[in-house]
Amino acid sequence: MELISERGYRRTSLAAVAERAGLTQQGLLHHFPTKESLLVAVLEARDRWDLAAAPAAWRTDTLTQLVDYNATRPGLVQTYTVLAADSVTEEHPARAFFESRFRAVRGSMAEALRAEFGETLPGGLTPEQAAPLLVAVLDGLQLQWLLDPEEIDMSTAFRDFLALLGSGERRSGGQGAAPAEG
Amino acid sequence: MELISERGYRRTSLAAVAERAGLTQQGLLHHFPTKESLLVAVLEARDRWDLAAAPAAWRTDTLTQLVDYNATRPGLVQTYTVLAADSVTEEHPARAFFESRFRAVRGSMAEALRAEFGETLPGGLTPEQAAPLLVAVLDGLQLQWLLDPEEIDMSTAFRDFLALLGSGERRSGGQGAAPAEG
Repeated sequence: MELISERGYRRTSLAAVAERAGLTQQGLLHHFPTKESLLVAVLEARDRWDLAAAPAAWRTDTLTQLVDYNATRPGLVQTYTVLAADSVTEEHPARAFFESRFRAVRGSMAEALRAEFGETLPGGLTPEQAAPLLVAVLDGLQLQWLLDPEEIDMSTAFRDFLALLGSGERRSGGQGAAPAEG
Repeated sequence: MELISERGYRRTSLAAVAERAGLTQQGLLHHFPTKESLLVAVLEARDRWDLAAAPAAWRTDTLTQLVDYNATRPGLVQTYTVLAADSVTEEHPARAFFESRFRAVRGSMAEALRAEFGETLPGGLTPEQAAPLLVAVLDGLQLQWLLDPEEIDMSTAFRDFLALLGSGERRSGGQGAAPAEG
């Protein structure tokens, strides 16, 4: 995870990982026969880590913290983005991992939205309708941010999306009237 | 474009493209020295094609038609998804293409949203705030759909997102009351 964070997806070689871990390359290959299998294990470890850092269940504010955190670790976000997209190709070794991960994440997000908003979100969607959109926004913003970090602020854009999900509550925010506090 | 539509990203080889185009492999390499350069040209051709098929400017309903159309051509969507994500890695040959494409697409989307909704969308966002979210939703839904086409209906999910962008207009749709038609 350190190496990927430092060097990104393409420049992380199995040889460099073996060296950093104090293993022979053959010793590493015994545990991870391909670069893909190593990277999937890294992403699984990140998921466990993030889940352990989060409270019992996701909420939109802990998600926002996760987006802020991801903005500090582009190497890992890059690895996730490249590998997830690559997994859609035929017979990719990480396909099963991502397919089941996306199902699980959509499920968790729907659960989190239901706990926070009930059966209908203020904007009018059900939790099951909003969950794939929320996941799409997270992934899509990461891609735009990785390509153009000066132009795209993931954290602000994600907060805009959350405001949209919850925007039905507000009756016209009063155009031109700035809030009293900063 | 035919071959990619039929076979997808990974199984489209330069040799197969040369054969289909009636060129020697060397003749093809003269025009496209790498597979990436060929694929970028294919995506550029798709963009010109889609733009030619659209009316003078994008509107949310023509975007919806484009999502419906993309659902019929998974090979091209797959190629776009894999190549766009891959382009975030260091010194990738397609990086400049995607960086400028994303800027252009965000610009077009902001323009389209402004023409349709004015300076503030019903959900409360400005066109410039909504545009990266709209692009993120398009890309993120494609990824989820490619992995799990049975589970994810891109067209329906995209319409849900558009409803969210426009949802501030509606005052509670009346839960449980079904519309008369449909």
